Amino acid sequence: MESLQVIARIHTELPEKFGVPRQSGLVPQLRGRIVFEPAYRNPDAVRGLEDFSHLWLIWQFSEAIRQDWSPTVRPPRLGGNRRMGVFATRSPFRPNHLGLSSVRLERVEQSEALGPVLHVCGADLMDGTPIFDIKPYLPYTDSHPDAVGGFTDGLESRCLRVECPPRLLECIPADSREGLLGVLAGDPRPRYQEDPQRVYGMGFAGQNVRFTVDGETLTVHSIDPLEK
Amino acid sequence: MESLQVIARIHTELPEKFGVPRQSGLVPQLRGRIVFEPAYRNPDAVRGLEDFSHLWLIWQFSEAIRQDWSPTVRPPRLGGNRRMGVFATRSPFRPNHLGLSSVRLERVEQSEALGPVLHVCGADLMDGTPIFDIKPYLPYTDSHPDAVGGFTDGLESRCLRVECPPRLLECIPADSREGLLGVLAGDPRPRYQEDPQRVYGMGFAGQNVRFTVDGETLTVHSIDPLEK
Repeated sequence: MESLQVIARIHTELPEKFGVPRQSGLVPQLRGRIVFEPAYRNPDAVRGLEDFSHLWLIWQFSEAIRQDWSPTVRPPRLGGNRRMGVFATRSPFRPNHLGLSSVRLERVEQSEALGPVLHVCGADLMDGTPIFDIKPYLPYTDSHPDAVGGFTDGLESRCLRVECPPRLLECIPADSREGLLGVLAGDPRPRYQEDPQRVYGMGFAGQNVRFTVDGETLTVHSIDPLEK
Repeated sequence: MESLQVIARIHTELPEKFGVPRQSGLVPQLRGRIVFEPAYRNPDAVRGLEDFSHLWLIWQFSEAIRQDWSPTVRPPRLGGNRRMGVFATRSPFRPNHLGLSSVRLERVEQSEALGPVLHVCGADLMDGTPIFDIKPYLPYTDSHPDAVGGFTDGLESRCLRVECPPRLLECIPADSREGLLGVLAGDPRPRYQEDPQRVYGMGFAGQNVRFTVDGETLTVHSIDPLEK
């Protein structure tokens, strides 16, 4: 048994699990800011980090904590109806609630109020997620492009055509719009829900984005401020 | 603050930190066995894992635990005389003592006594290291061959010529010999020790391997059973 300290938290446009991409890098346009906890706001601790293009984040599945664990889970990529061993998946429901994500590092900001702030892209973390460690991505040891991806190989990522009236998109800050469109194209619905009448609501950048999906087309109907 | 359970331990030929490769994959011939702790010895928990070629291990730097943390460390690859931010390195001395390694999965053994045992290659972990999580390596999201490796880019890994009399090598089990030769070729000495007279002793596969290094040549002088 070992206890961990939260060293930082990430801030993203996604206030809830619904809409969070299922792996890092799937929506490379999604922006996030990593803010260190007060005890770790030391510019020296990130010296040299800006020379790396990618980072590893080890973090906590803070919204998926269960006391007991199940040896098998049902990966959404298999349609949610086949069970795989928990250690053969990246499911949040695992004995220790550790997540692992690689993100692109855009820049390191030295903020007077917050210390070093890391601006990253492609995170699959909801807003406020606690982070336990940040490590540089070392391509000579971490990159295995010819690795065999088991049951994930050959599964197509479903990609929807997104229709969003420009006047609605204007409710989203300009540099977050591509991220929203990427999340929607990735089909955030639970697997195998095929009701074209159903209206989904997803929080994004402080707004509630309401949409329907008919076949391969996702249509945004409204974007309104989220009620706090 | 979050507490973690040890789910497994790895067994390798390296009983101490001295000799452990500085990253995973540097000595691909090094063999290891991952044995689950009794509470996790469930064949269902690894169902489907044998179809992946590589795994991630999240583990504990169990021999490098310090109560306080330093914002900077001195990476051995920079000769040990330049300081970098701890989060820009994979140093063991970090606020949470989490290690991250990718290893090749050779096979999954179903042992009557131990449950599922994972046979892996290329680990940079000493014998008995506690493991907190095992995840499949997903090439479509984890592999970034064009990532920029910061201060690690362009640093040559030093590689020694190893001279070991065949009769000494026979003291090592046949399928561990390539691993030993790989560890020695990687120059296990602390950086910038250049005393050709100095005899180093390294534990490996239950033996004490004694050697000297003169220039680019490492010479093995004896291989004798380790005293327990």
